[in-house]
Amino acid sequence: MELKHYMKELGAQVDEALDRMLPGEKILPQRLHEAMRYSIFAGGKKLRPLLALAACEAVGGRRRDAMAAACALEMIHTYSLIHDDLPCMDDDDYRRGRLTNHKVYGDATATLAGDALLTAAFTTLSDPEHTAGLDPAVTLQVIRIISRAAGSLGMVGGQVADMESEGGLEVDLPTLEFIHIHKTGALILASIKAGALLGGADAEILARMERYGEAAGLAFQIADDILDIVGDQEEIGKDVGSDQARGKATYPALLGLEESRRRAIELRDMAIEALEPLGEAAEPLRAIARYIVDRTR
Amino acid sequence: MELKHYMKELGAQVDEALDRMLPGEKILPQRLHEAMRYSIFAGGKKLRPLLALAACEAVGGRRRDAMAAACALEMIHTYSLIHDDLPCMDDDDYRRGRLTNHKVYGDATATLAGDALLTAAFTTLSDPEHTAGLDPAVTLQVIRIISRAAGSLGMVGGQVADMESEGGLEVDLPTLEFIHIHKTGALILASIKAGALLGGADAEILARMERYGEAAGLAFQIADDILDIVGDQEEIGKDVGSDQARGKATYPALLGLEESRRRAIELRDMAIEALEPLGEAAEPLRAIARYIVDRTR
Repeated sequence: MELKHYMKELGAQVDEALDRMLPGEKILPQRLHEAMRYSIFAGGKKLRPLLALAACEAVGGRRRDAMAAACALEMIHTYSLIHDDLPCMDDDDYRRGRLTNHKVYGDATATLAGDALLTAAFTTLSDPEHTAGLDPAVTLQVIRIISRAAGSLGMVGGQVADMESEGGLEVDLPTLEFIHIHKTGALILASIKAGALLGGADAEILARMERYGEAAGLAFQIADDILDIVGDQEEIGKDVGSDQARGKATYPALLGLEESRRRAIELRDMAIEALEPLGEAAEPLRAIARYIVDRTR
Repeated sequence: MELKHYMKELGAQVDEALDRMLPGEKILPQRLHEAMRYSIFAGGKKLRPLLALAACEAVGGRRRDAMAAACALEMIHTYSLIHDDLPCMDDDDYRRGRLTNHKVYGDATATLAGDALLTAAFTTLSDPEHTAGLDPAVTLQVIRIISRAAGSLGMVGGQVADMESEGGLEVDLPTLEFIHIHKTGALILASIKAGALLGGADAEILARMERYGEAAGLAFQIADDILDIVGDQEEIGKDVGSDQARGKATYPALLGLEESRRRAIELRDMAIEALEPLGEAAEPLRAIARYIVDRTR
C-alpha cells in the first residue's frame, strides 16, 4: 500500500480513537476539554501514533493492541507543543497554520490543557478497556518506556537543553545531538519500542526496532532543521527561518546544508537496514523512514 | 504512637525515597533537576504520601508496597503547586515561606520542572524496582486511579473551575463543592484508594476507605479556607487573606466562619466513623482526620 493511503487510514483511526478516549466538550470544565481538543485535532502529522501502530504490525501484532499507546503518544506530543508555544517559552502565535492554544484560550488555560493532556496519556495507557487481552506486565513496561522518554531524561530534558543553548555561545555538535536525541528522538524511539512490545516482539527484533528508532528519530530532526531553512512557509505552517532568527542551534548551521542532507540520508538508510529480516510487514516503517527525510513539511 | 512522630518518621522515609526516585542534581540538564528538587524538598506537609502509606498499613499492607505511589502523589501535588504559582495563574512569589519555583528558576524552567515532575510520577509508578512483588494488574489500577484524579476530570479540572470562578459573580455552594472536590479532594481520595489497594484491601474495606477519603478531602479544603482567614501568616507560609483579596470562592465567604467550622468537624467525624471496623491499625488515619481539621497551617 502506498504510504499516503496508509497514513490517511491510520490517521483517521487515531482521530476516532482519540475522540473516544478524551472527555467530550460537553463535560465540565467545558472550556478545558475544548482547549485540549483544539490542539489534539489540529491536523498534525501523527508521526508518533503512526510509528507505534506500524511497529506493532511490523512484528506481527494487532493494530488495536497498540491504539491506546498510539493515542497516548499523540497526547504527550501535543501537550509539549502547547507548552513550547507559551509566551514564557518560544512565544509562538501560530502552529500548524492555526492560532496557538494560548492565543485562543489564554496562557493559564493553555498551561492546564497541556497538563491535562499529559495526564490523560497515562489514564489512557492504564484504561482496562483499551488494554484488555494484553499482559498487564507489558502494559506497565510500555508506561515506563513512554514516561521516561517524555520526562526530564527525555523530551523535557531536551527542551531545557535547547532553551539553555538559545542565543548563547554557538553550541557544538555533541550538545546539538544531546538536544535532538532528547527533545524529539526519545519520544519517537519510545513510540517504536512501545508498538513493537505491544505487538509481541522478542528481544532480537526489539533491538532492531531500537536501531530503526534511533536512526529515524535523529533523521527526523535533521530534516526538520533543513525544512526550517528551505521549506515552504505555507506548507510547514510556521515561520520559515524562525529557528535561525532565534539563534537556535541547528544541523545546517553547524554542518552546512549539504552535509546535513547527507547525514539525514545516511540515517534513513541505517533505519531501513535495521528492518532487513522483517519482510513485507515492515514496509510501512520503511516508507515512513523515507518520508521523514523526503517530506516537505 | 503520636501523630507528630508518625508524620515525622514517614516524612523522612518519603524524603529518602524521593531522593532515590528522582534524578540527581548532577544529571543533565542539571538546572532542571535542581528546579524539580527545589520544590519537592521544600518542606511540605506530605499529606498525600502520608495518607497513602497510612491507608496501606490500615488494611494490613506493607509500607514499602505503597512507597512508590506515595512519592508519585507528592510529585503530582508539587507539580500542581509550581504551575499554580506561575505568573499566568495565581502569580505567587512565596510558597511554604520560600520563593516560588519560577521566582528562582524563571517561568520557562518552572513550567518544565512541573511537567517533568508530573511525568516522573508515572515513571516511578511503573518502575519494576519499586513494584516488585506486586500484582502488575493492581499497579495498573493504581496508575489509572491516580492519573484520573490528577487530570481534567479531577485536579486540573478543579483548577480550571476555580480560575473561572475568580473575580466573577459570587459562586454558589454546588460550584464551590465542584471546585473543592476536584481541585484538592480528588487527589486526596486517590491517595487513600491507592494505598488501600496496594495494601490488599477487599471491596468492602475499599468502600469504607473511599468514604473516609471523600470526607477527609472536603474537610481539608474547608479547613484550608478557614486558615486563609484566621491563620497565622508565618505558620501557613503564604499571605493570609490572599484568597479573599483575589475574590476566590471559599466556604467562610459563602457559609460564614461558624457554619464552615461545623461542617469541617462533621466531615472529620464521618471520616473517622467510616474506619470503625478497622481497629488499631487505622489509628494513624483517624489522627490524620483530626489533624486535617485542627491544624494551624
